[in-house]
Amino acid sequence: MHGQASLVDTSMNAEILSIGDELLIGQVTNSNASFIAEQLNTVGIFADTMTTIGDDEQAILGAFDRAYRTHDVITVTGGLGPTHDDITRAAVCKFFKTNLTRDDEALANIKGIFAKRNITLIKRNEDQALVPEGCIVMQNHVGTAPGYFFERDKRYFIVMPGVPSEMKEMMTRFVVPFFDKRGIGTSICHRTLKTTGIAESLLAEKIGDVDRLFLPDSGLTLAYLPSAAGVRLRISARASSRPEALRLIQEVEGKLRTMVETYIYGTDTEELEEVLGKLLAERNLTLSIAESCTGGLIADRITNVSGSSRYFERGLVTYSNEAKIDELGVPISMIEQYGAVSREVAEAMALGIRTKSGTDIGLSTTGIAGPTGGTPEKPVGLVWIGYSDKYEATALRFNFGDQRLRFKERAAQAAMDLVRRKLLKIGV
Amino acid sequence: MHGQASLVDTSMNAEILSIGDELLIGQVTNSNASFIAEQLNTVGIFADTMTTIGDDEQAILGAFDRAYRTHDVITVTGGLGPTHDDITRAAVCKFFKTNLTRDDEALANIKGIFAKRNITLIKRNEDQALVPEGCIVMQNHVGTAPGYFFERDKRYFIVMPGVPSEMKEMMTRFVVPFFDKRGIGTSICHRTLKTTGIAESLLAEKIGDVDRLFLPDSGLTLAYLPSAAGVRLRISARASSRPEALRLIQEVEGKLRTMVETYIYGTDTEELEEVLGKLLAERNLTLSIAESCTGGLIADRITNVSGSSRYFERGLVTYSNEAKIDELGVPISMIEQYGAVSREVAEAMALGIRTKSGTDIGLSTTGIAGPTGGTPEKPVGLVWIGYSDKYEATALRFNFGDQRLRFKERAAQAAMDLVRRKLLKIGV
Repeated sequence: MHGQASLVDTSMNAEILSIGDELLIGQVTNSNASFIAEQLNTVGIFADTMTTIGDDEQAILGAFDRAYRTHDVITVTGGLGPTHDDITRAAVCKFFKTNLTRDDEALANIKGIFAKRNITLIKRNEDQALVPEGCIVMQNHVGTAPGYFFERDKRYFIVMPGVPSEMKEMMTRFVVPFFDKRGIGTSICHRTLKTTGIAESLLAEKIGDVDRLFLPDSGLTLAYLPSAAGVRLRISARASSRPEALRLIQEVEGKLRTMVETYIYGTDTEELEEVLGKLLAERNLTLSIAESCTGGLIADRITNVSGSSRYFERGLVTYSNEAKIDELGVPISMIEQYGAVSREVAEAMALGIRTKSGTDIGLSTTGIAGPTGGTPEKPVGLVWIGYSDKYEATALRFNFGDQRLRFKERAAQAAMDLVRRKLLKIGV
Repeated sequence: MHGQASLVDTSMNAEILSIGDELLIGQVTNSNASFIAEQLNTVGIFADTMTTIGDDEQAILGAFDRAYRTHDVITVTGGLGPTHDDITRAAVCKFFKTNLTRDDEALANIKGIFAKRNITLIKRNEDQALVPEGCIVMQNHVGTAPGYFFERDKRYFIVMPGVPSEMKEMMTRFVVPFFDKRGIGTSICHRTLKTTGIAESLLAEKIGDVDRLFLPDSGLTLAYLPSAAGVRLRISARASSRPEALRLIQEVEGKLRTMVETYIYGTDTEELEEVLGKLLAERNLTLSIAESCTGGLIADRITNVSGSSRYFERGLVTYSNEAKIDELGVPISMIEQYGAVSREVAEAMALGIRTKSGTDIGLSTTGIAGPTGGTPEKPVGLVWIGYSDKYEATALRFNFGDQRLRFKERAAQAAMDLVRRKLLKIGV
């Protein structure tokens, strides 16, 4: 068994296998492995290894064999599609020394999908209903290729399509409930506190030594995970039961919150746009946005939340000076005097969009996303974020660097966090 | 050696090791591995295995050992940060039986960064300048932790920080040029043709048997890679030289283009927004956008392109009916008669934004992103995409399913593709 052995005595370990040349040449980022790991964790199964190999029978069989010898649970994704480079199914048959058999339910599903989409069924699609004998067939409710679930030699061998939405549906509908019913004995729980607006090292200074948070043998760990959106603090706990693990986490979370509360905008998978949406909805407040350098990213994120139409009224992407003048009533003289990237224009944009749309809050961004267009006084990366409500208009200055996409991401995050802080009356 | 052996006789193989509990519990998606693989490919090094393990010394040493025995090139990322859970450096020292030594250049770099950001230097940052003896130190130009490059026993062992921007800078400035100068002998080249607006199975039918494209032993492969943005066709070639590999690819690309040309909007890492931007700039045309259901995503993507201010004038996110009426002059009677999600409103929005902003082209979206809000006549997933130029106003109807984020992505892609097709006078 690989690593972490001292902590996983009674839990099952897993290896997550991903198959596909597209992963090995770096064309596609492997998002399946992280999803599967997270889901298995919820039922006490810890993935200690993730392996990616190509569409090559020898490599696939080698990986199957090694994973099967060293792990309780093996998940396999990829290579179940309808085209010639999909060879996982054949490898599974070879590994388990079994043959293919037609699954009527899978065939009916495939036919149904094609009928619904009004597309003629072709043989290569029909062949996806051929499954290895002796497995439990996991029907595909969102696509054509079924998955296979083998329970043998106290091992669980789970084969799923590589299309993320199809794999996810199978994991949540079949795989997780299966293990949940069995009950594993050890529970691994995680909680992530998402911070923004503070650097990793400063956060570490404020929190100090982890010994202040928990004892070395408590089954607890703390990790710092930086990203453009901010640093996440992940607390992990292993205990004999889920309630016990959650209790341990809660204790540490409480201590952390006393140290860095104002920087924490959410937990786990919560996005800042969701948190902000809830705050606005609770207060019955509406928001409008005027974006220049973020180019629509804030509006895009706000509207990623279902139900955002309750508080998000409209957004403007005023990229040109003309658009700032026409749409937001920014005085031309102000742009001439201070430049489009200035405190004055940011405030005027926020005020302009709020007044025009009749919302409670107006938010704006104006900056230099780069990589070109900077000057010594106004370098690439400079951004002014403007805020307006019926009591005040204000603007904050940041520098978010010269990488265009990261700049946009950080600026959008800081803008949304400004509104969060205003709503919670946290100093900015 | 693992898989693909018959094709990589003279090239070097690589294993990409990623270290970090955050990857194993699924909190973070591993984007480093794909970037490294892609970069190594350009210098003829093929990653046949990617492995992810946790912040656990035993697991790390086990993986180092296995990778070192089976691969020519081993890359390691993660665990070089300033906090307690970063243990990669100690494991590297143990593996190579070496000690830590202070690197003055690394220390100067760290001090410089802290001075520039005006943050007090603390010891845990200073310690990042301690590096294993006997390695080439890869200085970190965008962060604090240096990387380590070992050349031993005809093996290359490369350790880099896990922060993507830092790793990327080291790969492109140091690692890739290093191998490029050496010259490897075999060249692996890839070319991806990016299609949109056509299903994978229909594409496969149009293209037919791969034998029509190339002989089985030609060193060529073709893969289908579906995503929300469309299906990508990846051609890979291995040959004794880069020109030869490129010649093979060009031949297959030519054949594919005769079959499915109009669906191909770009190649390799080209995004539709870049292609569209070039088409607009070449024709000296300007674009404005009125988005409802896509919520700013199209404007966000358009403005991800540096220089987009030349052709992108403004965007409106008219989420409410009021915004559609006020901002775009959509008649209230039209919304009452046909509903906000209708051909009529989509066309009126496109016309409205074009007229208001004085651009050559107006583009609009109106739809039901879901997961709730559908009716039997207008189900979740329905979207109308509107287009207006001085000759015509038109709208197309699509259904992009009930997963909100995927819906937005597909709708934004289809909208941009509509403009591409209009500019290229391809039928829609």
